[in-house]
Amino acid sequence: MMITGKSIIGNELAGSSDSYIQAFDPSSGNILQEKFFAASEQEIEKAIGKAKTAFNTLKYMPDVQKAEFLETIGNEIMELADELVERACRESGLPEARIRGERGRTVGQLKMFAELLREGSWVGARIDTAIPDRSPAPKPDLRTMLVPVGPVVVFTASNFPLAFSTAGGDTASALAAGNPVIVKAHESHPGTNELVSKAIIRAAEKSGMPDGTFSSLNGVGYSLGEKLVTHPGVSSVAFTGSFKGGKALYDLAQKRERPIPVFAEMGSTNPVVIFPGILSDASENLASQLAGSITLGAGQFCTNPGLIIALEGEHLDGFQSALSKSISETSSQTMLNKGIFENYLNKVNDLTSRKDLDIISKGSEGGELAAFSMVTRVSGTDFIKNPHLHEEVFGPYSLLVVCNSKSQLLDVLNKLEGQLTTTAMINQDDIVNYTDVLNEMRDVAGRLIYNGVPTGVEVCYSMHHGGPFPATTDGRFTSVGTEAIKRFARPLCFQDSPEELLPEALRDGNPLGIWRTLDGKLTQE
Amino acid sequence: MMITGKSIIGNELAGSSDSYIQAFDPSSGNILQEKFFAASEQEIEKAIGKAKTAFNTLKYMPDVQKAEFLETIGNEIMELADELVERACRESGLPEARIRGERGRTVGQLKMFAELLREGSWVGARIDTAIPDRSPAPKPDLRTMLVPVGPVVVFTASNFPLAFSTAGGDTASALAAGNPVIVKAHESHPGTNELVSKAIIRAAEKSGMPDGTFSSLNGVGYSLGEKLVTHPGVSSVAFTGSFKGGKALYDLAQKRERPIPVFAEMGSTNPVVIFPGILSDASENLASQLAGSITLGAGQFCTNPGLIIALEGEHLDGFQSALSKSISETSSQTMLNKGIFENYLNKVNDLTSRKDLDIISKGSEGGELAAFSMVTRVSGTDFIKNPHLHEEVFGPYSLLVVCNSKSQLLDVLNKLEGQLTTTAMINQDDIVNYTDVLNEMRDVAGRLIYNGVPTGVEVCYSMHHGGPFPATTDGRFTSVGTEAIKRFARPLCFQDSPEELLPEALRDGNPLGIWRTLDGKLTQE
Repeated sequence: MMITGKSIIGNELAGSSDSYIQAFDPSSGNILQEKFFAASEQEIEKAIGKAKTAFNTLKYMPDVQKAEFLETIGNEIMELADELVERACRESGLPEARIRGERGRTVGQLKMFAELLREGSWVGARIDTAIPDRSPAPKPDLRTMLVPVGPVVVFTASNFPLAFSTAGGDTASALAAGNPVIVKAHESHPGTNELVSKAIIRAAEKSGMPDGTFSSLNGVGYSLGEKLVTHPGVSSVAFTGSFKGGKALYDLAQKRERPIPVFAEMGSTNPVVIFPGILSDASENLASQLAGSITLGAGQFCTNPGLIIALEGEHLDGFQSALSKSISETSSQTMLNKGIFENYLNKVNDLTSRKDLDIISKGSEGGELAAFSMVTRVSGTDFIKNPHLHEEVFGPYSLLVVCNSKSQLLDVLNKLEGQLTTTAMINQDDIVNYTDVLNEMRDVAGRLIYNGVPTGVEVCYSMHHGGPFPATTDGRFTSVGTEAIKRFARPLCFQDSPEELLPEALRDGNPLGIWRTLDGKLTQE
Repeated sequence: MMITGKSIIGNELAGSSDSYIQAFDPSSGNILQEKFFAASEQEIEKAIGKAKTAFNTLKYMPDVQKAEFLETIGNEIMELADELVERACRESGLPEARIRGERGRTVGQLKMFAELLREGSWVGARIDTAIPDRSPAPKPDLRTMLVPVGPVVVFTASNFPLAFSTAGGDTASALAAGNPVIVKAHESHPGTNELVSKAIIRAAEKSGMPDGTFSSLNGVGYSLGEKLVTHPGVSSVAFTGSFKGGKALYDLAQKRERPIPVFAEMGSTNPVVIFPGILSDASENLASQLAGSITLGAGQFCTNPGLIIALEGEHLDGFQSALSKSISETSSQTMLNKGIFENYLNKVNDLTSRKDLDIISKGSEGGELAAFSMVTRVSGTDFIKNPHLHEEVFGPYSLLVVCNSKSQLLDVLNKLEGQLTTTAMINQDDIVNYTDVLNEMRDVAGRLIYNGVPTGVEVCYSMHHGGPFPATTDGRFTSVGTEAIKRFARPLCFQDSPEELLPEALRDGNPLGIWRTLDGKLTQE
């Protein structure tokens, strides 16, 4: 398929501006030839205008029709076959197996939301029946369900060119809820974006979705993002990326005349606490497990374990040696883009120039934009003193924090900022001896992992991928799993509504057969 | 019971500052003698410190114990008997029957949350069982439930000295979720606040709640509120009041290093659209129904119908005459405080000096801080032109907007800001002839009422009292009904947790017998 470099504005292509970006192949160091033209002011207005018009149809669309649309997007993405895989590999430097896996995840997410829609109970229907003769005042009939919020802007992520980008989890959940989506293409993978965007448009046409249900805009620099987030026609925003980027969008959205939510997932250091019992049982095993997680995908996962916390003690040296050995044997890996690579080098250089930090291991160097792995060590005392050390280093890096006592360990946990995940490595003795520390860990993150690694975010009903600030802007919501749809919906209550004006989900006799809360009791009747 | 004028800091009284406020009886125009001393910096710190300590116990407390606490608060409030009723009447100018009714609502809300806790399913438990032999990667065991967020600051409301104040819906739902609460007493009803606060403390002691579960602070001016909202130890804020007040708190909370949610319910004009069919059927009946709602409680409800929207036509004159007659027969009513009364007079004077507005009726004047009722009229064209006319006038006032066509009516609806409620007065013909307009009304508000009045907010499972901005800061949440608890909770996910570290709600065998989503299916198994 020809890559045009144009923005996709509903069912039209557009690209009248002169400014453009080009993608870069991090593996070869070559600029890719295609030019992607920044959307003009008029094109941005047109995309938002079309989205608003499309919303007037989308908001009444039966869930089954939206389900078909999502499934068709999945099929159209698979139809892109090797062309998509090759392009995504070239634009991200990620290996083919990873991209194929990510494509599977992306299509799987679309199917998951389609199933959620076909089942239908996600709208959380609640009905209180009337009591007309209640004294002193009659009780009205009240029926509430979730409805879509309006046009959603999705920022694509550098580290997931498919699963958290154009047709990724944010787009899938926003569309599933009944909202039009406007994607801001990532400057690192605009070609991948164009291929997937066109697949979405083909699916929209096949499924009878209104023009404007989906748009995808190219931009140069920050101005497109700013315009989208501050536009009065936009109702909600999803973002996965750096703290700096996410917080800037959040601040813009809060300063609007009508503030809107920005669901920004801004990364995390995902502390792993290794308790003394398990350390004595299995220090080598732990070390190789952690080394694998630290270096997976060149450490470019938001759940990368950037902090390892342990207590001083006889088995720590063995663990540290084993970790050091595993890390020293790792090869360098190509990073996603130049900015990320340079940022990694700068951060590591800055940290390793500190007197309070010791390098305990470094992997091999070499290769285009290729990062070496590294683990450093600091005392609990110095870690507590220097909040700078708490910051995420995006890449295959981890900091071992060695505490001199249980109370210092508790202190370290108390000083941590909000995290996506926190992990406890424990055996049965640790459960008994460290109950207080294990309980304290509940306050740190959105997900608590036991004897596993934080990388790997299961897409399912129970996943919660959203930690307290600054891991995300709103830890009450998840960006992975079925509950992600709740970000883009609001409750609407109908009081004493005539039957014919009620959405099907709220009608007498429960025509959709969904679970509803009827006078406080869950029922499918 | 002696009123001390002190702040209540967990189980202690404190009031070391020299600055104080006194309450005012709006009915008599007299200042009440008791002095209420502003909490000092140290006292504020102490209240928040105690709340943080209490949270360490509260967050693990079984729901049944919290339920008992809430019920005991209700009992202790009833024990205050006439002393509370008299004090609340004196400080608010509200009639005794209203205060007794509001007390019933307050106690009812506490019981409702106690029932919700005893039933237990509110935590929304979700479990995905492990698939250890899944390829390419095993599926972990994932279990998620809602947990409390930490200390919540509750701002008490002028217009509900009991039901949206010290032990009102915000406090009840925040405590139910397992959070400590710090109340900022209202300057209009500090004595009522002290009586209720002491009832809460007695209940806390009887129910074995930790010291710091509840505090209640007096302040002078805005500084106490600012300090509480910007304090790093505070996790969430609830407010009911003016747009100006709510938005100021929201902005403060968003500018924090760690932004926190502010659930501000900031009022609304609650547009009532009268369609031509019903107007020809029942114009007199509609007029008297609306006059009753406009003037109820001196119009000091957030759901007061401040806008009536209708189409020009032969039956409009009859309706207008009937409304005019009903309003002209109303007596003046004492308002809640001097500020509210003066604000009402200023707004009405400002509006009635406009050339595009006609006064169509005015009730009788006279009495201490007593507001006359008023209805004015404007054309749809002028209403669209002047956003100033869209603003709420807090008091017994309503504006009749007369549209010259269906398309102008749609235009008026499109121009409206977010509302708590919107009401459609319709007959069967209107449903057929105005489907498009009726559908458009879904976007305006959080609650859509048919052939009723917006005043009267039922406390139940299906109530949604939260409209799009600026009606509230976050239309995804309600401040009335069982769902209000969701404001003060966040999901926490346990991955591969040992059974003994799981909260009861997530354990194998479902020991609490609650509804849980097990591998995507709702079950009580």
